[in-house]
Amino acid sequence: MTSAAEVVVRRCRELAAFSEEPGVTTRTFLCGPMREVHALLSSWMTGLRMEVRVDAAGNLRGVYPALSASPDAPRLIIGSHLDSVPRAGPFDGVLGVVIAIGLLEALEGSRLPYAIEVVGFSEEEGVRFGVPFIGSRAVAGTVDEDLLSRRDRDGRSVADAIRAFGLDPATLPDAAARGSLVGYLEFHIEQGPVLERLGLPLGIVECIVGQSRAEAVFTGAAGHAGTTPMADRRDTLAAAAEWITAVERHAFNTPGLVATVGGLEVTPGAANVIPGRCSATLDVRHADDAVRRSAVETLSAAARGIAERRHIRLTWTERLDQEGVQMDSSLTATLERAVTLAGIPVHRLSSGAGHDAMIMASIMPAAMLFLRSPGGLSHHPDETVIEGDVAAALEAGRFFLGELARS
Amino acid sequence: MTSAAEVVVRRCRELAAFSEEPGVTTRTFLCGPMREVHALLSSWMTGLRMEVRVDAAGNLRGVYPALSASPDAPRLIIGSHLDSVPRAGPFDGVLGVVIAIGLLEALEGSRLPYAIEVVGFSEEEGVRFGVPFIGSRAVAGTVDEDLLSRRDRDGRSVADAIRAFGLDPATLPDAAARGSLVGYLEFHIEQGPVLERLGLPLGIVECIVGQSRAEAVFTGAAGHAGTTPMADRRDTLAAAAEWITAVERHAFNTPGLVATVGGLEVTPGAANVIPGRCSATLDVRHADDAVRRSAVETLSAAARGIAERRHIRLTWTERLDQEGVQMDSSLTATLERAVTLAGIPVHRLSSGAGHDAMIMASIMPAAMLFLRSPGGLSHHPDETVIEGDVAAALEAGRFFLGELARS
Repeated sequence: MTSAAEVVVRRCRELAAFSEEPGVTTRTFLCGPMREVHALLSSWMTGLRMEVRVDAAGNLRGVYPALSASPDAPRLIIGSHLDSVPRAGPFDGVLGVVIAIGLLEALEGSRLPYAIEVVGFSEEEGVRFGVPFIGSRAVAGTVDEDLLSRRDRDGRSVADAIRAFGLDPATLPDAAARGSLVGYLEFHIEQGPVLERLGLPLGIVECIVGQSRAEAVFTGAAGHAGTTPMADRRDTLAAAAEWITAVERHAFNTPGLVATVGGLEVTPGAANVIPGRCSATLDVRHADDAVRRSAVETLSAAARGIAERRHIRLTWTERLDQEGVQMDSSLTATLERAVTLAGIPVHRLSSGAGHDAMIMASIMPAAMLFLRSPGGLSHHPDETVIEGDVAAALEAGRFFLGELARS
Repeated sequence: MTSAAEVVVRRCRELAAFSEEPGVTTRTFLCGPMREVHALLSSWMTGLRMEVRVDAAGNLRGVYPALSASPDAPRLIIGSHLDSVPRAGPFDGVLGVVIAIGLLEALEGSRLPYAIEVVGFSEEEGVRFGVPFIGSRAVAGTVDEDLLSRRDRDGRSVADAIRAFGLDPATLPDAAARGSLVGYLEFHIEQGPVLERLGLPLGIVECIVGQSRAEAVFTGAAGHAGTTPMADRRDTLAAAAEWITAVERHAFNTPGLVATVGGLEVTPGAANVIPGRCSATLDVRHADDAVRRSAVETLSAAARGIAERRHIRLTWTERLDQEGVQMDSSLTATLERAVTLAGIPVHRLSSGAGHDAMIMASIMPAAMLFLRSPGGLSHHPDETVIEGDVAAALEAGRFFLGELARS
């Protein structure tokens, strides 16, 4: 007999085949293959006699009615996103939507005191328009003209993309969640190694950590690699290297802090020319916003000090200062009870990555459950989940629905 | 009255206008504007009743006959290159050819016991085909099929480029210098800050330093910048940064050594992704080949050590191991006497950059005179020379011709 967890894993792998690139999974906001994803998910939801629609932001939304037929019945939203990064794995995002459907299937037709809306968000990764959470922002009612007029590489705006998918941006207000909202629950792979290291299938997300981004541009002097003595150089790559080493050291010495220099561009970049310009990106995250901001201060001061000593000009630009988002304590306590009832040790952790739950937390209580990521791998074709962990998540989810019905 | 030095500087600036790019000086091997450079230089040389030709490698060659009309008369070659890096200054290369013509003009028609061949080499910078010294290699008779079949970015071979310029690669053997060769003399800007720092107009090149090039590729694991704890990272940019710092430190601690990481490529290069791959170039130069090779050994071992400790794979590829080239001691002594006779303090130095003199030294005695580079600037539109230094070089050159005639 096929277990529910086995079905979930198979469905995720099935959906991974719908891609903009053959052989890999790449599915950006409102791309063609998203229709096929919608069609398959809809077929499973209509099998449960759910009412399914695609809202103006391209979110797939299916409603499983409450015991009471009243349209004012309270509503729980369970969701995650259906878009992906380029060359993604099969589970990031999609798993949360497929688990939600699996949970409703496990109800075997019985109704709860609240309705359940399953949402497959159209956009979370920020790939196509360089800005994430378009789907959940629409549900939160915070998509504005500025966002709608943002353009992709081909010069098409978000509004254009919505129209090209056969939807009407004018009806976006109808996408906003209204009425009595019980809360938002999201299942998601951890995308990190913590649960695997602890030998735990599940983790309860306490908060989604805040994030800072900055760009450091070092401007010195290009010069001949053969004729410029070491003491006369204003080598910007050497300066950046010293700083990158300092960034890593500071993060190692600050518990819970992660700091990453992910992008570096060297000009002119020839083997025999001293780099006259070097620009580096910085990404800093910590569960405590104060620690994060102080780290950015420290690292910007370090860059300044290094640049000054080397007679190099530093331009520091802050690109992002996004506060951390706490999950709802009461809904999280319910989730914790559910995990315990499922016989799984409770472990609370913070999420280093952003999630739709961040946005949903602004309009209703939100809670989030992580599933262990084997090898900590994500955003990679080899990203996977353990079937037993999916079974544990389904079990915890069933207890969560029950606990919520009782409360 | 216009001084000879003033004429030299004006001519160099005039030639700088012939460029592949409007507003700047970019003149690669056998490009169209090279014809105009040839035409102008030829007009000055034919004004001296010199016999001028363009050889099969595109070198412009003018012969000023010896006292004896015999075709077997000994011959001195004075030359430098006519090509440039992109967005170059007006003096790198060209100055040496224009000074040579200025020296012959100063003879006012008188003949010496030896002929003087002025050579404007067609290619020294290695821009178009990624390999330098095509011009001087032809004069040394070392252009082979391998070099001829090398292709530029547009897929055209060196042989194609020669044909497109209206020349015949089959006649390349005629480009080789034959007969009784007295030696090779090259005037060139220093391209570094040494003479300026010493307050000297001229410097005598003792040797052209050897050069090593290598590529270090670090392969670790890309990962999510938010979800991967510091201790779990295999961050290749952090590894490369640690190594670049070590490269700089080692060069600082080794007298006379210059070591440069000029190129760095980070993959995937996104702000929120830990770099999974990072490749860096290394350029190492020292007057003593043993010191240079030992430095490369040390730096490769440092990269290996850093990679191992970080569980990162290192691929080390040696790209170049070019030995240093000594200038001829006897011809250099003659040049030293000439500089002294011109009333200029003698300073010997080594050249950190490669020059055509390296190639010519393989077939005849070679000597080289540097002119001070204001600000150490070269390969830059602001590259310049001081007119008084050019006058000093012309004066030293005249004494050199006289000393050589006496010897």
